[in-house]
Amino acid sequence: MPETPEPGEEPVFWNQTALVGKRIPRLDGYERVSGAAVYPSDIILPNMIYGAVLRCPHPHAKVKKVDVRQAEKMPGVRAVITGQSHAAKKLKWKYSRYSGPLFDPLCRFEGEVVAAVAADTHFQAWDAVRAIDVAYEVLPFVADHNKALSENAPAIHDQGNLAGTDEYERGDVAAGFDAADEVVEQVYDTQCELHTPMELHGCVAGWDGDRLTIWESSQGVFAVQSRIAEVLDMPLSKTRVIGHYMGGGFGSKLKPGKYTVIAALLARQSARPVKLILTREETFLCTGNRPANTMRLKAGVKKDGTLTALEFDCTGPSGAYPAGGTALVDWQIRDLYLCDNVRCRSEDVFINAGPARPFRAPGHPQASWALEQMMDILADKIGMDPVALRLKNIPTVSQGRDRPYTTTGLKQCIEKGAAQFGWEKALDRAGKQNRKNTHIKRGVGMGSCVWFVGGGGPPSTVIIKLFQDGSVNLNMGASDIGTGTKTVMGLVAAEELGVRPEMIQIEHADTETTQYATPSGGSKTVPTEAPAVRNAAINLKRQVLEMASEDLGVPAADLAYQGQDIVSKNDSNTRIRVTEISRLKKRGVAVGIGFRGPNPENKSVNPFAAQFCELEVNTRTGEVRILRFLGAHDSGRVMDRLTYDNQVFGGIVMGIGFGMTECRHLDALQTGKLCNRNWHDYKLPTALDVPVDMQSLPIETVDPEANNTGAKGLGEPVTIPTAAAIANALHMAAGIRFTKSPVNPIEIIKHLTAGKEG
Amino acid sequence: MPETPEPGEEPVFWNQTALVGKRIPRLDGYERVSGAAVYPSDIILPNMIYGAVLRCPHPHAKVKKVDVRQAEKMPGVRAVITGQSHAAKKLKWKYSRYSGPLFDPLCRFEGEVVAAVAADTHFQAWDAVRAIDVAYEVLPFVADHNKALSENAPAIHDQGNLAGTDEYERGDVAAGFDAADEVVEQVYDTQCELHTPMELHGCVAGWDGDRLTIWESSQGVFAVQSRIAEVLDMPLSKTRVIGHYMGGGFGSKLKPGKYTVIAALLARQSARPVKLILTREETFLCTGNRPANTMRLKAGVKKDGTLTALEFDCTGPSGAYPAGGTALVDWQIRDLYLCDNVRCRSEDVFINAGPARPFRAPGHPQASWALEQMMDILADKIGMDPVALRLKNIPTVSQGRDRPYTTTGLKQCIEKGAAQFGWEKALDRAGKQNRKNTHIKRGVGMGSCVWFVGGGGPPSTVIIKLFQDGSVNLNMGASDIGTGTKTVMGLVAAEELGVRPEMIQIEHADTETTQYATPSGGSKTVPTEAPAVRNAAINLKRQVLEMASEDLGVPAADLAYQGQDIVSKNDSNTRIRVTEISRLKKRGVAVGIGFRGPNPENKSVNPFAAQFCELEVNTRTGEVRILRFLGAHDSGRVMDRLTYDNQVFGGIVMGIGFGMTECRHLDALQTGKLCNRNWHDYKLPTALDVPVDMQSLPIETVDPEANNTGAKGLGEPVTIPTAAAIANALHMAAGIRFTKSPVNPIEIIKHLTAGKEG
Repeated sequence: MPETPEPGEEPVFWNQTALVGKRIPRLDGYERVSGAAVYPSDIILPNMIYGAVLRCPHPHAKVKKVDVRQAEKMPGVRAVITGQSHAAKKLKWKYSRYSGPLFDPLCRFEGEVVAAVAADTHFQAWDAVRAIDVAYEVLPFVADHNKALSENAPAIHDQGNLAGTDEYERGDVAAGFDAADEVVEQVYDTQCELHTPMELHGCVAGWDGDRLTIWESSQGVFAVQSRIAEVLDMPLSKTRVIGHYMGGGFGSKLKPGKYTVIAALLARQSARPVKLILTREETFLCTGNRPANTMRLKAGVKKDGTLTALEFDCTGPSGAYPAGGTALVDWQIRDLYLCDNVRCRSEDVFINAGPARPFRAPGHPQASWALEQMMDILADKIGMDPVALRLKNIPTVSQGRDRPYTTTGLKQCIEKGAAQFGWEKALDRAGKQNRKNTHIKRGVGMGSCVWFVGGGGPPSTVIIKLFQDGSVNLNMGASDIGTGTKTVMGLVAAEELGVRPEMIQIEHADTETTQYATPSGGSKTVPTEAPAVRNAAINLKRQVLEMASEDLGVPAADLAYQGQDIVSKNDSNTRIRVTEISRLKKRGVAVGIGFRGPNPENKSVNPFAAQFCELEVNTRTGEVRILRFLGAHDSGRVMDRLTYDNQVFGGIVMGIGFGMTECRHLDALQTGKLCNRNWHDYKLPTALDVPVDMQSLPIETVDPEANNTGAKGLGEPVTIPTAAAIANALHMAAGIRFTKSPVNPIEIIKHLTAGKEG
Repeated sequence: MPETPEPGEEPVFWNQTALVGKRIPRLDGYERVSGAAVYPSDIILPNMIYGAVLRCPHPHAKVKKVDVRQAEKMPGVRAVITGQSHAAKKLKWKYSRYSGPLFDPLCRFEGEVVAAVAADTHFQAWDAVRAIDVAYEVLPFVADHNKALSENAPAIHDQGNLAGTDEYERGDVAAGFDAADEVVEQVYDTQCELHTPMELHGCVAGWDGDRLTIWESSQGVFAVQSRIAEVLDMPLSKTRVIGHYMGGGFGSKLKPGKYTVIAALLARQSARPVKLILTREETFLCTGNRPANTMRLKAGVKKDGTLTALEFDCTGPSGAYPAGGTALVDWQIRDLYLCDNVRCRSEDVFINAGPARPFRAPGHPQASWALEQMMDILADKIGMDPVALRLKNIPTVSQGRDRPYTTTGLKQCIEKGAAQFGWEKALDRAGKQNRKNTHIKRGVGMGSCVWFVGGGGPPSTVIIKLFQDGSVNLNMGASDIGTGTKTVMGLVAAEELGVRPEMIQIEHADTETTQYATPSGGSKTVPTEAPAVRNAAINLKRQVLEMASEDLGVPAADLAYQGQDIVSKNDSNTRIRVTEISRLKKRGVAVGIGFRGPNPENKSVNPFAAQFCELEVNTRTGEVRILRFLGAHDSGRVMDRLTYDNQVFGGIVMGIGFGMTECRHLDALQTGKLCNRNWHDYKLPTALDVPVDMQSLPIETVDPEANNTGAKGLGEPVTIPTAAAIANALHMAAGIRFTKSPVNPIEIIKHLTAGKEG
């Protein structure tokens, strides 16, 4: 098989680039903005019909009887499936050891599937769903993770409501606290955020003989393929999943939903392709969330800023099935700052609500909310600038993994970020403003972070075809979840081959026609896929050199690729255009294949960041105006500066949502039902909530050990410290430490008027 | 790059096979017969509209003015294009140096494109086409190839009506004739056959930004891609052509038609996908034909059967543009039988009719019509059995190319074919019948042939993916034109990998997602693609052995693939299932790549055949009943016996059409227009014209030099000698030498009653 490129082939790429790192618009930008791009929700197939799912309206209930007789007779209805249907009876939803049948008669959350219909139109399908008569035995529920383990909480699973515990310890925490000059302990609460990407979850499923094709709005077609093949007991080769465009996932589309299997069953039963796209309301109920967390953080610090101990307890709900209710929450505590003595403990519990799912930087913003506020408190206690305190504790080793980082750009992120942000000046400005007798107060705050992965790694396979006219086809399995993957990969190939990016066509995210790739998530797509793309291009170049050598009569070793020419290293007049190479012409195309090389042994590859915020609070209305934000990010090499900056801005916007607007409201006392299941009541930040002045400051650490492109992950660190930076700035402006997120005007006014009488 | 397999790896495949050579039903049989298979004509895309083309009704005319004002106003019309439209003005149809603009104002044949419309429905498009007002200046025409070069024939091109001449000579023909005991000279005429495959010609074209996707009923997507990219001046990577299913081509779909470009232009102008499928009438006019040929053949033979000289003159029409009016006609004369002295000359001429196109075994059935009848005449002259005369003249060297064949199965084809057919008995039976005083006469006849190519050759690239559950994806660019290419390739991969064929999914014929392949034609698809498939499977196996070696702790060289297990050669208990190999699991898939190796140097790889026919003639009605046919074919290794036999039967059926039913009727004297432009008037053989008793006798020459599968081409030789065998049998039955094809009841009665009075 083709090898990894030799170091000798690297320098051109490393020292100067024509495309990589520049501001290049999306290669598929036209398709996306013109509406020509076909997302799964846009797909129309001949004879396609529409699916709809009946979902349990109770947080906890037993399905006693499902009567579909009326529904089956309704106009346009072609298939009705329940747990008793032949098609579904034996199917298991193999998510974990807690998973039961596909249609589980014990519904453990509001939104669990009970039956499904396919009909000629969307409306006929929904009419039929409403005509299904279900007898439920409603059961007691628990919807608050802090009550899930109490004596009188109903058991959600036979094994009880404890989904799992996780413990971590290094050093001697007690001794650490003893050695501290200041010890602070505080409880923090973060809310549950719901997954609500622009494109709804869903798919189109169709059968062609014994072969199933699924067009799914997915972050990873191969992950969907393996799950569906497993549930339906089919060969992988007959289970095709395509995901060419998708409108956002943020972790909620890493795997298929029950709806994917249901669509396949409805399609088989009706012998028609079935489109099953969830409604917005359904996605709020069942496509996942960032779980709420309750965190107790105790920290000790010496007067000189040395952190002596960190102790962290965390509880969080997986929802009704194991889904990582506290997953990765402690990572920031373990790894962000130098500290010899750390103890973390987390308890993941079941509640009667939709399961959690990975949500952009799972666990990290929650812990950042606690840790970064705590750092400011500690700084205050010892009279140190918050920036200086963080700079005092920069690690070069992943303490949690006990191995060195290839690069740690954290120091530069904080230093250069603070410099470009004008930290000192901003502090002065805020001080001046707050000394004025006015209801507009000003604050600045910051937060920094590490992302627990982000170095990517094998496997990744990429194939690049060079057509005889010099144009290029790039074939990779990875999904572009809106982050610009196609653009970045196109640039890497174009850079390496010396072709214009518009000559490159990309085929991706199709289990049948493209190469295996892991799902796009974990900020690992660029560092995983780009090295394979580069290796494929290098492999292709080598073949082209060999072919050119036959035409030029010069050994391949003496030839070099120069733009679209092959040139003799010894005589620049001895050259041939790639399009003129005889064997290439004869062969039609040349095919290069490339694999992702292994990661460095005994080193950890991680991105770092620091974000800075300046804001104003209207102390009469509680309204907050974020004036500006700066994100200084060490994600290694910048691949496309335009998509890079957009990632930073998007992450900050999402962080503003986490810190200030988004929140799942469960009626935990009376019905257990979700109160805000639409974009009116579930508040995403809008353009008015976002500062006009957002800056991105790339800290381009040179990290050749990370991989052969030097890129590290970016998609998740960009949203980790945002909310904490806001909270810190709010503290300066309003004088209040907000321990519960989100911080909206109501909360601010509540705090500002606490103890006051009207 | 991966190498060709080493000889050491061959034996299992060569000595015993589990699948290859067996009677395996088509892998895509269910899809084809259930209607689930989506042919280009079946495609429906969101917002798709329909195209229709206005064609010149005259064989020769100048377009003076095209008025589309009325058409543009008609309901549903979204685009109208003429030669004056901005979209088409500068486009050249780059078929040859004779080709002019896409919409050429000088129409040289009935059916030339004049304008095109796209509208919301098919009917609206046709209504609008009819509303286009064209002023033509009608010009004199010539429609008979024997008159094309006469003084008063109108010049079709400025350069005159001679499209080209071809000459070949070896030995001394005059001396050859002097040495002969018998010399016979005869003129033969074959009719023009029209291309009329089951699926109409056409495509769906859609734009996605600057990228064009075409679903075309095509024999070779890469050939369509390159032509379209050239005409539209686009990068190949942005010109995607897909041809998953297609309903027959027979040579007429090797390249795109003007309709393909027109569909693309209409789609761009209307910003909609456009489906443009020709009507049956249109396909008769402009999608090509097997040109009529007038052939003078003079042959000399010694009493012992030695052929001393062959002299051959041929004229045929390319139609209005260069298209091989006499292409390959002389090959049978040059190469089929041993003869030292051969001279061939052909004249290809222009006439005002639709251009010819390659038509299953181009040129060969025509020459076979002449040569094989001549062989019977010579045999008769020297009192030798026709079978014996042919056996006397078996070559082992391609005389036309002056290099040896890898294998010549011709002798076995004739000998074993005659034996299985029961040649002697059949002769007796016919003799007895014909001595009876009855109007039912009986005849037997035979013909043999060589096909001028059929060994295939590079380039071909195939990629095979092995999923972690052991199922397989086969990726190749070749089209399956209905001949079972997918099935054969699936079997080769399944054989080599030891998997069940139903575990294999095949992705093919897509310029973007599959590997480069030359068009499926020339009976070269199997010998070209199968070796690459096999090499890809071997390459994959090697990688899997290496991966398994890590698990088993045994060097890869000591391991062997055994079904779906990897087993130690030294200890059969040391084994691992492919699905359990750690690195494969981790990698998700393994990818093997294979290329077609080079052809043997200085040797020629060709298939041979002999066919035998027994029939009855009703001398009162002229009706012919073909009683049975046997095809003995040397096409090397049989890949799938079921598709093999079906190819033989299909070829015989098509040969019956050539010999007895099909014929283009041009009104050459008055209008120059096509008289029979539908399946009622243009007669394809039906089930009633075909013998129930058809036999296929594979002559499996072992031909390891040909390629690593031993297969040679089959699709074309199967139709070459059929008509001649019928003619020879007819001669025996009716006592008439039919020199003009087709021989239908009218012709027979005409001959039988010639000179008689009513």
